[in-house]
This record gives sequence, structure tokens and C-alpha cells, in this order.
Amino acid sequence: MTTHAARTTPDAEQQIREAELVERVTKSFAECSDPRLRLLMSSLVRHLHSYIREVRLTEEEWNRAIDFLTRCGHITDDRRQEFILLSDVLGASMQTVTVNNAAYGDATEATIFGPFFVEDSPAVPLGGDISVGAPGEPCWVEGTVTDTSGTPLAGARIEVWEADETGHYDVQYDDRRTAARGHLISDSEGRFRFWAVTPTPYPIPHDGPVGELLETVGRSPMRASHLHFKVDHEGCRTLVTHIFVRGDELLDSDAVFGVTESLVKDFDRQPAGVPTPDGRTVQGPWSRVRFDIVLAPARV
Amino acid sequence: MTTHAARTTPDAEQQIREAELVERVTKSFAECSDPRLRLLMSSLVRHLHSYIREVRLTEEEWNRAIDFLTRCGHITDDRRQEFILLSDVLGASMQTVTVNNAAYGDATEATIFGPFFVEDSPAVPLGGDISVGAPGEPCWVEGTVTDTSGTPLAGARIEVWEADETGHYDVQYDDRRTAARGHLISDSEGRFRFWAVTPTPYPIPHDGPVGELLETVGRSPMRASHLHFKVDHEGCRTLVTHIFVRGDELLDSDAVFGVTESLVKDFDRQPAGVPTPDGRTVQGPWSRVRFDIVLAPARV
Repeated sequence: MTTHAARTTPDAEQQIREAELVERVTKSFAECSDPRLRLLMSSLVRHLHSYIREVRLTEEEWNRAIDFLTRCGHITDDRRQEFILLSDVLGASMQTVTVNNAAYGDATEATIFGPFFVEDSPAVPLGGDISVGAPGEPCWVEGTVTDTSGTPLAGARIEVWEADETGHYDVQYDDRRTAARGHLISDSEGRFRFWAVTPTPYPIPHDGPVGELLETVGRSPMRASHLHFKVDHEGCRTLVTHIFVRGDELLDSDAVFGVTESLVKDFDRQPAGVPTPDGRTVQGPWSRVRFDIVLAPARV
Repeated sequence: MTTHAARTTPDAEQQIREAELVERVTKSFAECSDPRLRLLMSSLVRHLHSYIREVRLTEEEWNRAIDFLTRCGHITDDRRQEFILLSDVLGASMQTVTVNNAAYGDATEATIFGPFFVEDSPAVPLGGDISVGAPGEPCWVEGTVTDTSGTPLAGARIEVWEADETGHYDVQYDDRRTAARGHLISDSEGRFRFWAVTPTPYPIPHDGPVGELLETVGRSPMRASHLHFKVDHEGCRTLVTHIFVRGDELLDSDAVFGVTESLVKDFDRQPAGVPTPDGRTVQGPWSRVRFDIVLAPARV
């Protein structure tokens, strides 16, 4: 950060040396027999070298970058994924989602997947409760799944998962519990409904190098309150998305840039004693939200 | 690699969505109180997002990148540094060296540091032998250290280290040996001389994810034969460099892009029986090389 290299503009001879190196490195991938991988690597080299040259990266900064990546690697295990967090806070995850989910008619927008999805979640009947003891205010969720022409999609698989009111997903506990996640199948008219817990804000794991980075640059690790969805139906593009809570003050500063206006929904708060849609007895207040899901066709 | 997103050019609306995301992410670093770090992060975000958008990175490719970085992290420990190897094979290490070591008069050119330098190497007297039992053909190395006006620099600290003829540095053995490394101090006329082993080619560690990458893209992990130097003298820019062996067929395909023409030296092969410069008895053939080192001033 303090060497002279970062402070001077390179002269023409120096610029030629630097550019020649970029050429030598990109040429080293010329023999790659997979054209897509060749493109990925040579473009990566060009962007990486452009960055180093543009910021005049010092050797001390390079050392710190190596150390940072090493610490990300060492904290990562089968329950903690620091590289995904890093991609998330740099907006790289959301940009990848954006690139791969171009708008199509009124199809529901996608947002980032996050590290907390688990395969083989419990099957939950329509009207069932995914929370299974996860602490939080009860929340009734209902909606439909249709295609972009409005035709209801029966048999869509709807995966839902969320943090509990303490800000933790089940997989973040040490006791291997399964809670606040499950999957449902839409009925013959494309409808679904279930009980969950009202989403609350929580920080991304910030006790590692990514958390340190956020703190150093003055950014918050908090995510806006949300409920995750992954929706599959034959012939449709898989939808990975969230719904957010209108009025949440974190909507404009979500740590992973996942918020899109169309995904902000009204979670209507119900005082204690208001009858529930399915007659279930609820202690205290609860909320309800409607989320109508529109799937794009698989190939657009 | 096979999704449609990579195959179509984004329309104007899509390009706006993508560009707006880049703006949102760079803006998130606006509160960073360290202006250098703010520049490093916002430029990183711009280049990273440019890459994702340019190659239309698929979600599968993103997953593979996360997995690759994770495997690099898990193979890295206090004796193996896969992130440095990755930086090396992408030419990022050499570009960082290039950016920080602009040419100055006839000052000796720098090249990459590599992961095998060790602090507190043994002190070796002038004319001594750094190899300490490392297998290899003996090699007599001599030269001077001067500044760019030709004035000899007495008391320069010259660190040297190299692989043995089996292609391994001492730290790559399990027995914690110290061999083929040491430091010398130039004499009152800036001269130095020592015995080492003649450098031979070797592969960078290629049993990990970086080795897999090289194999997949059809690149060799071999490094051109070389002997490492790090030279310090008060008032001078620290020089980290290698010398390479003229005639080595790997000079044009060095795995880490470290070769610069000015660093290729004549290692003159001496048949068995030729008297050595210091009268030492050597079994079999040996070699000799001259390397005159010119240090740039510390601030240029």
C-alpha cells in the first residue's frame, strides 16, 4: 500500500512489458481442447491482469490477498462455505444469477441461492407446517404456480427454507436438526399453502475473513428478512428466489445484494386472536403473505 | 457450460439490470475510510463483474469455481501454498512483480518469489557451499553486486535457494532438513562466490487442483531450471530474482512465466578433472556461472 509502484503512471516501455506478459499467459491456454474452458481461462487472465495493472497492486497487497484466500479456505468445511460468502458480498453470486435468469414476460425474478439449501428436505402436505419447532412467529404462506400465460401448474415442486427468529438455519446448529425447511407439491389448480415462521433479519456468518473484510470497509453483514423458494416444474426454468418483507429497513443494504423490488411482499401482521385461514389455534400474533409464482419456459 | 445464458447476447434491458447491480455493489464500498482499500475493492468488483458478464458465466461454472477454490484452500498448509501456485500459473504473480519493479537503468530484472523461500537461512562464508548434501552436480557461482552507477556494494546480503537434482527444495522433504539454501555477504569490493548445485528442471507441485487445471488445459507443470536470489543492500530496492540456464528447452514454456531474457546465463559445463576456481576437489563434471547483480535505488 505504500510502495512507489502504486503512485506512478507506467511509461510506454513498462506498459509494453506488462502487455507482453498478458499475451504470453493467454497464449499458454491456446492448446486447451475445450473451447469454452479456453475462453473462460483466457478471459480470466485478461481481467485479472487488467486489475493488477490498473490498481498497481503492491507485493504487500498481493501477500494479503493470498493470506485472505488461505483463511477463507481453512474456515470452509461441509457446513461453512466462506468462498460462497465472498462471492455473495462482492455481488458476484447475484451477477451470475442475473446473467442466467434474463427477464421473461412476467416470470418471477430469481435471486441468489445462498449456502443453506439442503437436498432431500422433508415432504410437507399442503397446509402443513415447515417450522417443526423452529422458534418464530407463525406465518401463513399461500399462492399459486402458473406459467407466463397464466395456466396453473399442477405438481410443481416447491422447496422452502428459512432462518428461525434467532437468525440461524437448522444446519447452523450442532444437533443436526431439520427445521424451517421442506418441500410441497402444488395441487391440481397450481395452489400451495403452508405455515412457516415470519422471516426476520440476520447476519451472514461474520466471524471469519469475509466478516473481517465487511467490518474493515464499513459494511454491515445483515441480510434483509426473507424466505427462500426453489420451484421446479417440467418444461419450466427452475426458479431460485426469495420473498422479502415490505417495510424491512434492510431492503436497501442487503449484504449480498439479493433484493429486487418485485420480490418484496406484504407480510400482513395479525394480532393475537385473529382466526387463522385453516382454523389452527395460534398463540399470540401471526402474519400472512401471498406469493404467486410465475415460471418461465425452460428454453428462452 | 451448456445453459442458454452463455449463448445469447443480452438485450438492452438485461444489460441495464446487470450494470445497475455493478453500481450497487461498488457503491457499498463508498463508506470505507481507507481510500486505497476502497479503490482496491471497487476496482475488483468492476473487473470481476465484467468477467462474469463477458463470458456469461453459468451457474454450473460458478459452482465449479467455488469448488476449485475450496479444494485449493484445503490442500494449503504451512508447507504447501496452492493459492500462490494458482497466482503463479495465471501469471498474476509475475505481473505483480512486473508492476512493482519497473526497469531502472541496467538494474537486474526481478522475477517471481516462489513459495520456497525460508527466513533465517544458514550464513555461508564466501566460497562456501550452500548445498549441504543436496544431491546434484556442483556449480560454482560468482559475481559482484553494484549500484546502477557501477559502484561496488560491500555488505550486501545475498540469499540463494534452489531445488536439488531430484526437483525438490529442502522444505518439501519430511525430515525438516536445511539444504541448498543460505545467505552470503558481499566483500569490500562487492564480490561474492559460492558452491551450489547446477539447477535442473522440476515441476511445480501438481498433485492438487492447480495441477489438475494445468492438465485439463494441456499445459505442463515444468519450471525452467533456475537458481533463486534475493539481494538486499541499504538504500537499494530489494531484488528478488532467478538466474536461468541458457539452452534449457523449457525457457519458453516456464509454468509460472518467470523467464526474462536478461536472466538467462551461461552455465559453463566443466568435464571431470578440470581444476576448480578454489582448488576444491570435485568428483565428476561441474559447472560455473557468473552473475553480476545491479541494484536499483530504493526510491525511483
